[in-house]
Amino acid sequence: MPCLIAAAAVVSSPAAAQSLAPTAQKVAAQALADPTAWTMLENLTTEIGPRPVGSPALTRARDWGVATLKQLGFQNVHVEAFTTGAWSRGAESAEVVAPYPQKLHVLGLGRSTSTPAGGITAPIVVFHSYQEMLDQPVGALKGKIAVVTQVMRKTEDGEGYGAINAQRTQGPVEAAKRGAVAYLIRSLSTEDNREPHAGAAMPGGIPAAALSPVDAEQLERIVARGQAVTIHLDLQSSFNPKAEAWNVVGEIPGRDHPEQVLVVGGHLDSWDPGTGAIDDAAGVAIAAAAAKLAAGANPPSRTIRVVMWGSEEQGGSGAAYAAAHKDEAAKIIVAGESDLGAGQIWSLRLPKGSMTTPAMTAFRSVLPGLRVIASGEAPNEGGSDIEGLMALSVPFVDFNQDATRYFDLHHSADDTLDKVKPDELAQNVAVWAAFLYTVANSDIDFRKTAQEIATK
Amino acid sequence: MPCLIAAAAVVSSPAAAQSLAPTAQKVAAQALADPTAWTMLENLTTEIGPRPVGSPALTRARDWGVATLKQLGFQNVHVEAFTTGAWSRGAESAEVVAPYPQKLHVLGLGRSTSTPAGGITAPIVVFHSYQEMLDQPVGALKGKIAVVTQVMRKTEDGEGYGAINAQRTQGPVEAAKRGAVAYLIRSLSTEDNREPHAGAAMPGGIPAAALSPVDAEQLERIVARGQAVTIHLDLQSSFNPKAEAWNVVGEIPGRDHPEQVLVVGGHLDSWDPGTGAIDDAAGVAIAAAAAKLAAGANPPSRTIRVVMWGSEEQGGSGAAYAAAHKDEAAKIIVAGESDLGAGQIWSLRLPKGSMTTPAMTAFRSVLPGLRVIASGEAPNEGGSDIEGLMALSVPFVDFNQDATRYFDLHHSADDTLDKVKPDELAQNVAVWAAFLYTVANSDIDFRKTAQEIATK
Repeated sequence: MPCLIAAAAVVSSPAAAQSLAPTAQKVAAQALADPTAWTMLENLTTEIGPRPVGSPALTRARDWGVATLKQLGFQNVHVEAFTTGAWSRGAESAEVVAPYPQKLHVLGLGRSTSTPAGGITAPIVVFHSYQEMLDQPVGALKGKIAVVTQVMRKTEDGEGYGAINAQRTQGPVEAAKRGAVAYLIRSLSTEDNREPHAGAAMPGGIPAAALSPVDAEQLERIVARGQAVTIHLDLQSSFNPKAEAWNVVGEIPGRDHPEQVLVVGGHLDSWDPGTGAIDDAAGVAIAAAAAKLAAGANPPSRTIRVVMWGSEEQGGSGAAYAAAHKDEAAKIIVAGESDLGAGQIWSLRLPKGSMTTPAMTAFRSVLPGLRVIASGEAPNEGGSDIEGLMALSVPFVDFNQDATRYFDLHHSADDTLDKVKPDELAQNVAVWAAFLYTVANSDIDFRKTAQEIATK
Repeated sequence: MPCLIAAAAVVSSPAAAQSLAPTAQKVAAQALADPTAWTMLENLTTEIGPRPVGSPALTRARDWGVATLKQLGFQNVHVEAFTTGAWSRGAESAEVVAPYPQKLHVLGLGRSTSTPAGGITAPIVVFHSYQEMLDQPVGALKGKIAVVTQVMRKTEDGEGYGAINAQRTQGPVEAAKRGAVAYLIRSLSTEDNREPHAGAAMPGGIPAAALSPVDAEQLERIVARGQAVTIHLDLQSSFNPKAEAWNVVGEIPGRDHPEQVLVVGGHLDSWDPGTGAIDDAAGVAIAAAAAKLAAGANPPSRTIRVVMWGSEEQGGSGAAYAAAHKDEAAKIIVAGESDLGAGQIWSLRLPKGSMTTPAMTAFRSVLPGLRVIASGEAPNEGGSDIEGLMALSVPFVDFNQDATRYFDLHHSADDTLDKVKPDELAQNVAVWAAFLYTVANSDIDFRKTAQEIATK
């Protein structure tokens, strides 16, 4: 591979920072043709497969992460251990017992409690919206299996998920408060197929599972025929409150300011039904490949650090990372996480006050060619794993991926490699690589740009 | 509903037969707006669900069929019992043991033998085409699990299925001959998702199952990494060689020639993973709705008989029907089965020599408006359930449905109601209704038209 990136002293004058533009464009172009991310994605999903926290597969994924970062030439490759709660799926089944006996496709929700051995049989009550269930008084669902069949809206920005998320995360606790013995939801899915979508719920609930969209509609039709409907539900699981997990870290140390760190990553863990290709092997691959391409053959002025967070789905890795790095937080220039699949980045938000700085102007020069809208400043959302850093006032970015297809697959058995389009994956790498390159080779200070805006 | 169909004496002159055209067109138009087929389809898939031969659900489906035909006003509604072999699925699982442990999604094939309790663990050998496996000498697969990953081609006419079918039906026996201990195929599916597609195989094989397309590709990638791959396979099933089954029959008796019978139907049984919406609740609904619409408020000149065949998937219902009706075969004017889903009819083949007859000219007058190509005469394929009648020289038709999406869903958990488009279903009803109307109210004799062609 030709060396496109000439060694350069850190560029601090506006003119010098803007002079980063031509190389940023070369980095982006190079990323579009670079196989690193695809290879990582294929290796992780093929050689490890599903990797829920608490599983032997996550240990293998950790080792894969270390080996891969070393092989790519990262330095200071290490793991940062922590413990977190890990819920593990056991045997699960569900069926309509009466009036029309038939099996239902379900996946237990994370933190679901187990039914008694052999399962439970109870009448159901169906709510077409989550609010309808919340409107029930305490005790109203006594002895019943509450079923919420609200449909998730497909949107480009993923807003449909945020709008309905409580149905999964809070529902089991809310149903329990009202006396329900178990809780079922229509999966938070935008695909009408037979795959249920897993996902975490808050602790304190009852046995809870997601129905496939097809099964949720079938239940609605069965109930609409007017007879009482009874379901048998058998959900077994286990919970380890102190499972071991790891954030896997590698760096490209800065030439001039090694203590100034850009943190970028994705998460290594996944839910168990699929192979976690879009959630989030893609993010891990995008971040590592972008960092490598941003550095090119010569070290950048500042340090680029890649983190493969180890427990995003069930929580813990972002908090562990922030706790371990709180003393260093003031030196973290910017943080970012790629965790919305492998769809193209279609818009992005840069830290407050930074849009027209020379460094970000240089970065933005790559965007038209990549069909990305620089839609504004001051993002209010980062990835889950950088929320801990955000709470420590670390500047962050939000690169919005096209989520139109993401929730067709998310947390389901169909989150697999074949769903990723190589050109879309590469576009993500190109945007991140250009961003990392311009920030790592300038002296832009996002805290300062935000302050300047604030005091204007 | 207005009575569109005036009572008419049987029309035997060319002019009179052609005069059927306006009413045929009215029947077709009425069918496009008629809810009967959709209601039947929804009821059967919702209230019965999956209905494999040998299951209690098929008994319930039989009762549903009788009740529905009676409710629609059919006469002589009855069941014709027979016995046939019924294979029933038990617990099934598959997983890669080494080098990259992960679960695989499989469905056992009909007539698969069971593995020993606890399953078997063996090395695999992957063939990218079925022919590659056939090319192996006897004994070459000793102790191995043979895996065939040939991909099915999506085609409008379903030809892709015929081209690859032996991979499922013959494969388990061929693999056994070569010493294999078990046999896996990439599902005969045109959809790249995580659903395996079930289906029958010939008896005499070994434990055999279909992988989802995604899992087949995953296995190919795992094998491509060069290490020996071991799979654990646990397939349990049972077989009843004398399961009871039933063909459910209803008639609209002919006014003038009740002994002259048009036989049309679909099959009531289904595979177990889905609810058998496209295979073949749709066909059952299309046939019954079309017969009802063809008759209208007044009896047709000849008898229209609807048959809901009871064991197409595992065989037996067509042979049983032919055996029971062999003495009547010479009086059966024509037979047809709708069994390729609910996609639109895009072309059709009429019996030899009949295209330009007055009756078929009247029928063909509806086709342009329904976007159907009358592509020729002398079909060589009917549905499985009329093959027995075909062997008795009963004339038959072949209405070709658009199968582009059919094999995305066929025999999988995704063969469900939501996949059917009501307007496409209605178009099928319209074509069949117009055909049944013109044949039942003319004196066309397809045996005679074929003979005239032969002696020309």
